[in-house]
Amino acid sequence: MALIVQKYGGTSVGSVERIEAVAERVARHYTDGDQLIIVVSAMSGETNRLLGLARDLTSNPSPRELDLLVSTGEQVSMALLAMALHKRGIDALSLKGSQVAIRTDSFHSKARIQSIDDRRLRAELNQGRIVVVAGFQGVDENGEVTTLGRGGSDTSAVALAAAVGADECQIYTDVDGVYTTDPRIVDGAQRLDSITFEEMLEMASMGSKVLQLRSVEFAGKYQVPLRVLSSFKEGPGTLIKMDEDDLMEAPTIAGIAFNRDEAKLTVIGVPDTPGIAYQILGPIGDANIEVDVILQNVGDEGKTDFTFTVSRSDLERAEAICELHIAELGALEWRSDSKIAKVSVVGVGMRSHAGVAANMFKALAEVGVNIQMISTSEIKISVIIEEKFLELAVRTLHSAFGLDQGQALEAQDL
Amino acid sequence: MALIVQKYGGTSVGSVERIEAVAERVARHYTDGDQLIIVVSAMSGETNRLLGLARDLTSNPSPRELDLLVSTGEQVSMALLAMALHKRGIDALSLKGSQVAIRTDSFHSKARIQSIDDRRLRAELNQGRIVVVAGFQGVDENGEVTTLGRGGSDTSAVALAAAVGADECQIYTDVDGVYTTDPRIVDGAQRLDSITFEEMLEMASMGSKVLQLRSVEFAGKYQVPLRVLSSFKEGPGTLIKMDEDDLMEAPTIAGIAFNRDEAKLTVIGVPDTPGIAYQILGPIGDANIEVDVILQNVGDEGKTDFTFTVSRSDLERAEAICELHIAELGALEWRSDSKIAKVSVVGVGMRSHAGVAANMFKALAEVGVNIQMISTSEIKISVIIEEKFLELAVRTLHSAFGLDQGQALEAQDL
Repeated sequence: MALIVQKYGGTSVGSVERIEAVAERVARHYTDGDQLIIVVSAMSGETNRLLGLARDLTSNPSPRELDLLVSTGEQVSMALLAMALHKRGIDALSLKGSQVAIRTDSFHSKARIQSIDDRRLRAELNQGRIVVVAGFQGVDENGEVTTLGRGGSDTSAVALAAAVGADECQIYTDVDGVYTTDPRIVDGAQRLDSITFEEMLEMASMGSKVLQLRSVEFAGKYQVPLRVLSSFKEGPGTLIKMDEDDLMEAPTIAGIAFNRDEAKLTVIGVPDTPGIAYQILGPIGDANIEVDVILQNVGDEGKTDFTFTVSRSDLERAEAICELHIAELGALEWRSDSKIAKVSVVGVGMRSHAGVAANMFKALAEVGVNIQMISTSEIKISVIIEEKFLELAVRTLHSAFGLDQGQALEAQDL
Repeated sequence: MALIVQKYGGTSVGSVERIEAVAERVARHYTDGDQLIIVVSAMSGETNRLLGLARDLTSNPSPRELDLLVSTGEQVSMALLAMALHKRGIDALSLKGSQVAIRTDSFHSKARIQSIDDRRLRAELNQGRIVVVAGFQGVDENGEVTTLGRGGSDTSAVALAAAVGADECQIYTDVDGVYTTDPRIVDGAQRLDSITFEEMLEMASMGSKVLQLRSVEFAGKYQVPLRVLSSFKEGPGTLIKMDEDDLMEAPTIAGIAFNRDEAKLTVIGVPDTPGIAYQILGPIGDANIEVDVILQNVGDEGKTDFTFTVSRSDLERAEAICELHIAELGALEWRSDSKIAKVSVVGVGMRSHAGVAANMFKALAEVGVNIQMISTSEIKISVIIEEKFLELAVRTLHSAFGLDQGQALEAQDL
């Protein structure tokens, strides 16, 4: 008897008919003898409807009230799915984040899970019940409702799987797996049978919509086998694995990821002294704004430029912080640019294959794409480019690294 | 500085624009120096939307899951109203039933409030905050979300007013007060400046939509002055008073109430022995079904017929109980009829004016309305009639007891 956590996204529970279909699928697993915890998102469109109501009222809603507002979306889905299971004669009950309890910190709208109490979950499972849990939400130590940020239901699922030691965490979504890149941009994009956590992390961090970044971090950290699969068609999906050694023939590059969601801030003419990076990024971090790529130019006459990227939704706040600190930094001015994009090649194979960076830069140069910033990790090389070159860059790299359908074997060792 | 509880119904918070209007009104009271607790219903249509989703899934939803589902409606309104108050520079925060905490029993969908913890409320009020509370909901001792039944937000408001010792509980709705009868049926219906709790209770129990029965019970029991007024137009509304002595010239009859929501069950040929009423109504009560009018015919050859009315929504369950117990009761058969209506004349003045019943029966007889059952209390006389005669009966009695506009003084002593 396996213990499985399944997570169904907003599209999968987007209507009564789709909730019925999910109930059917869950019922099949249940009769197969699995113990099941089902995590649900809000019905598609519902979170946006709720945010729209708030936006119609105010441009600056209280994060606390916003969490109380949007957390209702998952509560609706969970209750409906429980009803659909009852209709099939299955004993099921739904639990809100606070009822589980999923304890988080108090950062409204981007809370982090601190602990999960598994006692109620286990008690219900041991009664033979399916437990349906509202994703995306938790409760802080004062009993205040928190949310994990958009897409956070994946994180809820993985955290629950880790807490109960599930055999597999299955993320049902509207795509049938992880692709070498976004098929909407590259026709020849291919589904991957498996991918390592590290690669998936890099893909997710680059805005690959399949899974939320934090859910992959969690899954890797707690070694929860994670599978992405479609709730609409049958198929094996993509297994996200512990260890790259499992991959029989690790290709050099697993995929091309990209992200349009960043904006660039440059603080110009800061003193080129030790600690300047901290002085600039300290207040940014204090405001809970995440910084991605960072670039400090070589100093010139004791002055240097300092550039970093943040999520576009944080740009306005980051700009305000720059404005506030510009004088005390001894800087001349700051500039921002949101017309940028990030493109990355990702692959654990990169570790044992030299020359990936050189090939990447060469391919981009050949099509005339200028690189503004570069960031590298052991298994990823990212470049910041002008946003208008994004599609061109992704197609060029997908082809250059032999990822196009039918092209794989020949060009893999480029 | 007065402490006021205001309750806004679904129509009053039915859109972002209306929530803004409520916020404006609340802001005026706040700047006048009042301490305010605001209770809100779900946005109009929302509860029905949610119930519709459940109904599309199953004809027999779990009451527990249904409460989790529908309680989201009030949570949405409360968060939005808090945001609208923040926008006006007012410190406000919203609280769910569980956050207050409003403790209830565990009868899902028709829970009763057992206690209200006023500590959080007082702490927030003392900080100068307006507290917005989700109506209609509470939490049982196991942390399960409960709802008070439809219209229960009025009860929430009164219970909160009682718990904090509010100076007045104001129920804002889409009508501007309590009328002598439903103006949709009788053109000459008049708004009452005041009415006693007892009268209001009888009016409410008869389906008068202005206030929910239980809220009036609560208000009377805890002596909370209650005022019904319109959230759309200015006006004094109707004050529901402690004591009939306050009424300078108590009219004989305050109003004509009616109810289409009942159905009649008759158990035929039961043994005419002591305890038979309990044997029939015991199982009905155990199923938490409320019985209204009860009639036991004079026995004939040791057998009698036993008739009672229940809410139409409970009819199916009541029928099942009759069917189950028919044999052990020694009864011959049972019948049901949902094409009935109840019409009542209500007034504390009835106590000191004889002949009200006689006049009522005479007026109905003159227009050919047959009376099926009669039920009386000190301040009310109700009759069960065929549903098709309802409007005729209401108009006839409204006029007969001198309640038509312009007619009052002349005919009052009929």
